[in-house]
Amino acid sequence: MGKNLTKRSEDYSKWYNELVVKADLAENSGVRGCMVIKPYGFAIWEKMQAALDGMFKETGHENAYFPIFIPKSFLSREASHVEGFAKECAVVTHYRLKNAPDGSGIIVDEDAKLEEELIVRPTSETIIWDTYKKWIQSYRDLPLLINQWANVVRWEMRTRLFLRTTEFLWQEGHTAHATEQEAIDEAELILNLYADFAENHMAVPVIQGTKTESERFAGAVETYCIEALMQDGKSLQAGTSHFLGQNFARAFDVKFANKEGKQEWVWATSWGVSTRLMGALVMTHSDDNGLVLPPKLAPIQVVIIPIYKGIEQLDAISEKVQPLVGELRLKGISVKYDSRDTHKPGFKFNEYELKGVPLRIAIGQRDLENDTFELARRDTLEKETVRAGQVIGRIQELLVDIQENIFQKAFRYREDHVTTVETYDEFKLVLEQKGGFIAAHWDGTTETEDRVKEETKATIRCIPLDGKTETGSCMVTGKPSKQRVLFAKAY
Amino acid sequence: MGKNLTKRSEDYSKWYNELVVKADLAENSGVRGCMVIKPYGFAIWEKMQAALDGMFKETGHENAYFPIFIPKSFLSREASHVEGFAKECAVVTHYRLKNAPDGSGIIVDEDAKLEEELIVRPTSETIIWDTYKKWIQSYRDLPLLINQWANVVRWEMRTRLFLRTTEFLWQEGHTAHATEQEAIDEAELILNLYADFAENHMAVPVIQGTKTESERFAGAVETYCIEALMQDGKSLQAGTSHFLGQNFARAFDVKFANKEGKQEWVWATSWGVSTRLMGALVMTHSDDNGLVLPPKLAPIQVVIIPIYKGIEQLDAISEKVQPLVGELRLKGISVKYDSRDTHKPGFKFNEYELKGVPLRIAIGQRDLENDTFELARRDTLEKETVRAGQVIGRIQELLVDIQENIFQKAFRYREDHVTTVETYDEFKLVLEQKGGFIAAHWDGTTETEDRVKEETKATIRCIPLDGKTETGSCMVTGKPSKQRVLFAKAY
Repeated sequence: MGKNLTKRSEDYSKWYNELVVKADLAENSGVRGCMVIKPYGFAIWEKMQAALDGMFKETGHENAYFPIFIPKSFLSREASHVEGFAKECAVVTHYRLKNAPDGSGIIVDEDAKLEEELIVRPTSETIIWDTYKKWIQSYRDLPLLINQWANVVRWEMRTRLFLRTTEFLWQEGHTAHATEQEAIDEAELILNLYADFAENHMAVPVIQGTKTESERFAGAVETYCIEALMQDGKSLQAGTSHFLGQNFARAFDVKFANKEGKQEWVWATSWGVSTRLMGALVMTHSDDNGLVLPPKLAPIQVVIIPIYKGIEQLDAISEKVQPLVGELRLKGISVKYDSRDTHKPGFKFNEYELKGVPLRIAIGQRDLENDTFELARRDTLEKETVRAGQVIGRIQELLVDIQENIFQKAFRYREDHVTTVETYDEFKLVLEQKGGFIAAHWDGTTETEDRVKEETKATIRCIPLDGKTETGSCMVTGKPSKQRVLFAKAY
Repeated sequence: MGKNLTKRSEDYSKWYNELVVKADLAENSGVRGCMVIKPYGFAIWEKMQAALDGMFKETGHENAYFPIFIPKSFLSREASHVEGFAKECAVVTHYRLKNAPDGSGIIVDEDAKLEEELIVRPTSETIIWDTYKKWIQSYRDLPLLINQWANVVRWEMRTRLFLRTTEFLWQEGHTAHATEQEAIDEAELILNLYADFAENHMAVPVIQGTKTESERFAGAVETYCIEALMQDGKSLQAGTSHFLGQNFARAFDVKFANKEGKQEWVWATSWGVSTRLMGALVMTHSDDNGLVLPPKLAPIQVVIIPIYKGIEQLDAISEKVQPLVGELRLKGISVKYDSRDTHKPGFKFNEYELKGVPLRIAIGQRDLENDTFELARRDTLEKETVRAGQVIGRIQELLVDIQENIFQKAFRYREDHVTTVETYDEFKLVLEQKGGFIAAHWDGTTETEDRVKEETKATIRCIPLDGKTETGSCMVTGKPSKQRVLFAKAY
């Protein structure tokens, strides 16, 4: 299997597009902007889902399911929400097709026009708050901590596999609270949970912050986010958690009786991560040989490849390998023994490198004689020969080590790509020559933010929550600034 | 909590509708025909998904994800498929809304009309076979064994929670094979898997069979099904598995090179079960007190309710209960200790009865003194007092026993409601007075089938695969019949 993968240094964007397809993660479908997630890619997404779902449940959230359709009038109820979402949505107008009278095929049946158009959900705040109105009467009904795993549709003009697709998969949490503080705490709890997941499962270091007004979710009072840095120096928003204030409660008239029996509007949050995380995963760790997957999310953690001539050697190897496979599975390690005789070892080495399998074990005639296995780790491509008696322990060590190593590598890259600048000229120079995050002072106005975006294509990715509150002067206008913010070009 | 549940004997249909809502399984949404699946209902569905997903994976299937939209032209490619699905589908015609010029709200932007309408998938054969064309070249690419968990939309005029909704959740398997026999074997393997799941997890006895031509899936050569009998004597189709022949391969031009290098059309199957299973689960076991859930699918298997006066008694009870809760969880039993002081024990008893929790444990002052617990099983409502030292073992026994008992109860009901008849008059009498399945001879024509349906509302649910092939004469026309088929009124 020749990889024929474009090098990152040649064309990072092309490298990504090729890798996603060649590694069998996803491909474009016959429907404009919609992807097919292939089994290998979906297996990674399932591991992400399982980990996140467990974390949501541990923190008291329950799953539910709400309709895919949103009546047009629902979308209009919250003023800024409709501005944000009406412009890029799929609209269902009819509910039947019929045979064309001229026999040319099937056509929309104009007699089956909906009285009110339905929108395929771009996000579910409106349909959910319409439901919460029925569920919430008293403080005893609060908090309501609900999540759903769902598909959503946003009509994007330019799409890229995982990063921006018309349909994508995600989870969306929607919670309701009796007090403002409790809702803010929830939004922050989830932000921390997302950061924990990104760093400890995906091995992707993230910066936690809040969005500026112009980058905020349509309908939110505050949007919290985690931002990750890709190897081309561009930032990727990996998850958002919104404090919605009482905006949706007011729009859908959701009040509760507090302990004193008085009626109050309910406080809300919503939060989500999507299949976009797959893009972040690929772009953070992978190299010119293909994917590099963190062991915690790899569908196959260990692949074993026999190197043999003739069926007798293969049988001897298989006899040695089978108990190892069994023991590894007992320890919860996912292992594949690839004894296909239709492909040569070199082809298989290439294939599993391309697919990012963290550990490869090779075993040939000499290993049989010496009672050894050859281990090769995907992240560093280092090989070592291990005695059979030590192999299970060593595999366990290496899987932990790979998980940690790829995080540290990405973390060092990120740390090397946060540059502090004082002037706008310096800003432009760093943006052009180095990329990454640029920590600069900003006067807090949308005007200045827009100007920087127009002139440099960089946006404020977040106002970091790292507690540093050094004041200064805006690099563009010289006006006072409360703290540095992080600019970057972004996905 | 008063249940105020209509009795089954008064109005079975009303009983079902009320129970689904009162037990917090699901409710109607603000979108016509679409339901909200509430957390308690969704937790049951998640348990179904987990069990089925494990069974699919054990038999070599992988999950993937395909687009929600199907271009109109795809639907038309397979002639009988389009006949079956074009008449009840949601059609996306536009991709943008805009503000109305008169300020009256948002309207469809006519400039954003799609060149080709998109159908929200009613099932995914067409988009998947359009994809398989790219994936299948050689016999080495076969078999392709893929499943997806997804939402689908069929525009139903009359809807009922879980049983028939415009949007529903399901899994759909789509497999591709090199030979006809392999595809037939796959369709039958899945039929057996579905029957296994229904009987051993849901505790719902099912009859396996094939559909007549008029009840077959649109595009299938053969449709296999499992049929379950509800307590009102009506049958419910709980799952279907289709042998599709080469129909979709021909429609989407999917050929493979066989071992001799010759091009052949690919053979196909598809199969699915949906949230309709939730309806089958509710209607098979539940009673006038509420849900009865099989322990294997119950979100809460054991609930513990303290009976106390004052905080001191509660503390003493909690001290006794906590270690039990811990030990049960270690054994994988899901247990809830409901020590809320806002509700009385009687209220809680009612609530968990309504919600079908298999085992209720009550503990009061006298139990503390005697070192006992009181166990009450939901299926028979029987109570027993068990010494603390024996309680864990007894709980495990009872959970197994309840699972088995409710299956046996449903099985006996079903066995009592399969009636063999020889004449059409007898048929009508049984159908009216007793209901259930009626085993009768049929001449094999759609004409006779239609006549019976028109005159009695009963349909042929299946041609059973039980191996009985007694020949006879059609009860309606007297023409020869190869074997008895099962008629029933159906959901």
